[in-house]
Amino acid sequence: MFYLTIDVLGTIAFAISGVLVAMDKKLDLFGVFIIAFVTAVGGGTLRDMLIGNTPVAWMQAPVYTYTILGSVVFAILFRERLKYLRKSLFLFDTIGIGLYTLVGIEKGLQAELMPLMCIALGTITACFGGVIRDILCNEIPVIFRKEIYATACILGGASFFLLIRLPIVDEYAYAAAIVIVIGIRLLAVRFKIALPSIYQRE
Amino acid sequence: MFYLTIDVLGTIAFAISGVLVAMDKKLDLFGVFIIAFVTAVGGGTLRDMLIGNTPVAWMQAPVYTYTILGSVVFAILFRERLKYLRKSLFLFDTIGIGLYTLVGIEKGLQAELMPLMCIALGTITACFGGVIRDILCNEIPVIFRKEIYATACILGGASFFLLIRLPIVDEYAYAAAIVIVIGIRLLAVRFKIALPSIYQRE
Amino acid sequence: MFYLTIDVLGTIAFAISGVLVAMDKKLDLFGVFIIAFVTAVGGGTLRDMLIGNTPVAWMQAPVYTYTILGSVVFAILFRERLKYLRKSLFLFDTIGIGLYTLVGIEKGLQAELMPLMCIALGTITACFGGVIRDILCNEIPVIFRKEIYATACILGGASFFLLIRLPIVDEYAYAAAIVIVIGIRLLAVRFKIALPSIYQRE
Repeated sequence: MFYLTIDVLGTIAFAISGVLVAMDKKLDLFGVFIIAFVTAVGGGTLRDMLIGNTPVAWMQAPVYTYTILGSVVFAILFRERLKYLRKSLFLFDTIGIGLYTLVGIEKGLQAELMPLMCIALGTITACFGGVIRDILCNEIPVIFRKEIYATACILGGASFFLLIRLPIVDEYAYAAAIVIVIGIRLLAVRFKIALPSIYQRE
Repeated sequence: MFYLTIDVLGTIAFAISGVLVAMDKKLDLFGVFIIAFVTAVGGGTLRDMLIGNTPVAWMQAPVYTYTILGSVVFAILFRERLKYLRKSLFLFDTIGIGLYTLVGIEKGLQAELMPLMCIALGTITACFGGVIRDILCNEIPVIFRKEIYATACILGGASFFLLIRLPIVDEYAYAAAIVIVIGIRLLAVRFKIALPSIYQRE
Repeated sequence: MFYLTIDVLGTIAFAISGVLVAMDKKLDLFGVFIIAFVTAVGGGTLRDMLIGNTPVAWMQAPVYTYTILGSVVFAILFRERLKYLRKSLFLFDTIGIGLYTLVGIEKGLQAELMPLMCIALGTITACFGGVIRDILCNEIPVIFRKEIYATACILGGASFFLLIRLPIVDEYAYAAAIVIVIGIRLLAVRFKIALPSIYQRE
């Protein structure tokens, strides 16, 4: 129940971030919904297609579709006031990537993949909804250009595989890894830490 | 036989719409063919990957590939005169989305998905070839920006699930739903009805 | 062993071509890695998803991920000098598409697909990593616009299905087809042969 609540909060945050990007592009109602939808479930969908876990997750649990529909309606109705929610949305989004990372790792373990690939799946689950959103909106994906975002997922995922070797119950390893993803992201944003940009001197 | 004829007409219309977009971008022969191909089969391919229906449909029936090859050759040879075919192409395209919507719903039912997901699959089948075409051509997908297109598929799909509850044979429900998709699309274009664009006031 | 060496050389060439494109866009470290990764394994990944060969190949063999990681580190450290390697990279890339084409065809045969679809899978394996790279970098894919690239894969793939009808051992047909892909590409670049661009007169 607690798990589901957090998951739904993450979905809401991702969906609303999709609505915000879609509104910048002045898309129509259908376009806004699709962008919100792929932002929220695109990462998990790509993950499920990569490992052959089909029909993909959102097709088997309508709670995601209803949550996204509700979020889109809410975001459109109160679109002039979303800026006051910016901090809450950032927090939901950050909790969301922490949780989604571990969901992806769990799916990788179920598919008996090695740790490196589980971490990749976790990162894909958390980050690639935003990548697909940006491609559909004709932008170079924002996570390729700035901010510690995927890096937090990768480090948190790697921590998980160190933590489960310790003599603690698995649930603690999951919880600690989620906290590590969230912590790295919060610290990076707080102290404006970013990965270096790579280019050739002219 | 009738079904196949319509299906092939829809494929032709989608392929030629792909050629028209690709020519605007001055792509080479291979690029034009690929854009025509993904416009015609991209939606069904995404659908099949989402539900794990692999190898995807076009790999199992070469009729689609040959139809698209023929359409591309025809469209390139007569490219200066395609404008005179505009009305026929629009009609084929509209019939195509009606049929493709129901093909997608049928595949969803075979995969034992709930009605909401079947409608999503129908809409994906009908509309996402065009979305992939626009992404490959570096445009924001046109169906996110204007016209009643996906909306017609959604409403037609929803009608289908109301109609099959009636005491009529299933074939009639299929046929009626196809007609509803086509009818909504034709009326929307005739009366220039579009979904509202969503954006924040400056 | 020989096979693996060539395969790894192809992966290196593709990964470095990804790094070069990503640097032009001034992406950050994570973005550069992802672009290198999708350039090298994106084609095979799409192929595996289309035929349901999951988990996709790179998830089952970490050699690709390590090779790409090493290539990215190398390419970033020596980025000012990559221009001196241009010829070697072009050669690796050309060998890479030859090999990848036949890998794709082999996977198609294993899935019992007809020759036409095997050729399509070979071409997808060789060329669509670059297509996904260009989409992520917000460019119209370069292979839709210029150079004989996919065409070499298609012709080499078609040759393969002629050659295996001859009374020779299969290995020779594979090797000859790889040489044909490489030869066509080298000749096309040497003599600046390209497919015609298709467009309507104004």
